[in-house]
Amino acid sequence: MVSVDRKTIIVFSGDLDKAMAAFTIATGALAMGCQVTMFFTFWGLNILRKPEKVSVKKGFVERLLGFVMPRGPGRLGISKMNYGGLGARMMRKVMKDKNVQSLPELMETARSLGVDIIACTTSMDVMGITKEELIDGIGYAGVATYLAEADRSGLNLFIG
Amino acid sequence: MVSVDRKTIIVFSGDLDKAMAAFTIATGALAMGCQVTMFFTFWGLNILRKPEKVSVKKGFVERLLGFVMPRGPGRLGISKMNYGGLGARMMRKVMKDKNVQSLPELMETARSLGVDIIACTTSMDVMGITKEELIDGIGYAGVATYLAEADRSGLNLFIG
Amino acid sequence: MVSVDRKTIIVFSGDLDKAMAAFTIATGALAMGCQVTMFFTFWGLNILRKPEKVSVKKGFVERLLGFVMPRGPGRLGISKMNYGGLGARMMRKVMKDKNVQSLPELMETARSLGVDIIACTTSMDVMGITKEELIDGIGYAGVATYLAEADRSGLNLFIG
Repeated sequence: MVSVDRKTIIVFSGDLDKAMAAFTIATGALAMGCQVTMFFTFWGLNILRKPEKVSVKKGFVERLLGFVMPRGPGRLGISKMNYGGLGARMMRKVMKDKNVQSLPELMETARSLGVDIIACTTSMDVMGITKEELIDGIGYAGVATYLAEADRSGLNLFIG
Repeated sequence: MVSVDRKTIIVFSGDLDKAMAAFTIATGALAMGCQVTMFFTFWGLNILRKPEKVSVKKGFVERLLGFVMPRGPGRLGISKMNYGGLGARMMRKVMKDKNVQSLPELMETARSLGVDIIACTTSMDVMGITKEELIDGIGYAGVATYLAEADRSGLNLFIG
Repeated sequence: MVSVDRKTIIVFSGDLDKAMAAFTIATGALAMGCQVTMFFTFWGLNILRKPEKVSVKKGFVERLLGFVMPRGPGRLGISKMNYGGLGARMMRKVMKDKNVQSLPELMETARSLGVDIIACTTSMDVMGITKEELIDGIGYAGVATYLAEADRSGLNLFIG
């Protein structure tokens, strides 16, 4: 049965601004008592990376990808006018000055409210990202799990 | 109660091509008698900016952002192959030659058909955009209003 | 009547990674017995282009656009870190090494499972793309057809 109290969000993007939008919607829905499942796929997996370097055996391409892609919410760029990270830094400063919750804070709030975070295993394979590199307490699944959850949810967004 | 006669569209993008897609879907639905609510957030707020300069007291970063971001639908770039605005100009020319409604015309049509336009207040804060800079006759709200409307709507899209 | 066994996906993006996401969700849903309708609009039309050059009478701008835009799934770039096609080539290599289905294979699977592919006629006009340039066995329609199908579907995503 479809329920308006369930929502899913696919987070395909790994940009700070789009991640902010995803977690703002998620925390809003969680605060209203909904169950929210967020599926992180492709670039979105970077949002779930641990900020510290994790030593994992990998091939050359995977190692290179892991090196150039940002580790965690504190290092994401923005989708427009990033100018090599300057735009993202300015955005973080403005948000701090205006007392808007930062992305790490939004993620913490979402987790404390019981958000269900799932990393897409197929994307992890393609991006060469391993479980050891992602934050703890998350789930791992593929498209079938997403579709089953979406079938029960009243709101399903793709943030790409 | 969910109704197929209600639709919501989050317009996160401020690109001409994506704004065209958003307003094409919106006007199509409005013409079929649906009620459509469009939430403009982040870069999407630029679509709602008045084309003329508006004098508002702001800090340095907000002033800079306001200067580099486009004012209104007539100045937006496209998401790919923009080449400093050349791509957007070519797209506008092709649309005119083919008698496809321009974005300002689509917006006018949507408004005459009763679209509900809402600017996201949290994003306005982050982007340093004030009410004086946005077009008249729109609403202002946050994520809770979006979620309440989405819960009643049969179609909810995120255009990012 | 809305049915969870029907899904629609708007494919606005013409990027390899986003097209992969769209077809992964589509084939997953088709494999579970759902009816899936995919609407290709703007840059997404490039995914449907035949790989070979097709001789069609066009104006200068349309000819130029047709030349610079990729022809079919084998030539698409990725949305981030494409580096003039290098990123896309690396992604294709990694997917092959890991035995992940390539985009042409995913598309073939989707079609064998009965996906309904529709090209947006308004976008075709704007992008200067003709029916002769697109793959066979697809449908052509506008926003009204999309909205009618979305009204019957339990899952509606916009991949932009």
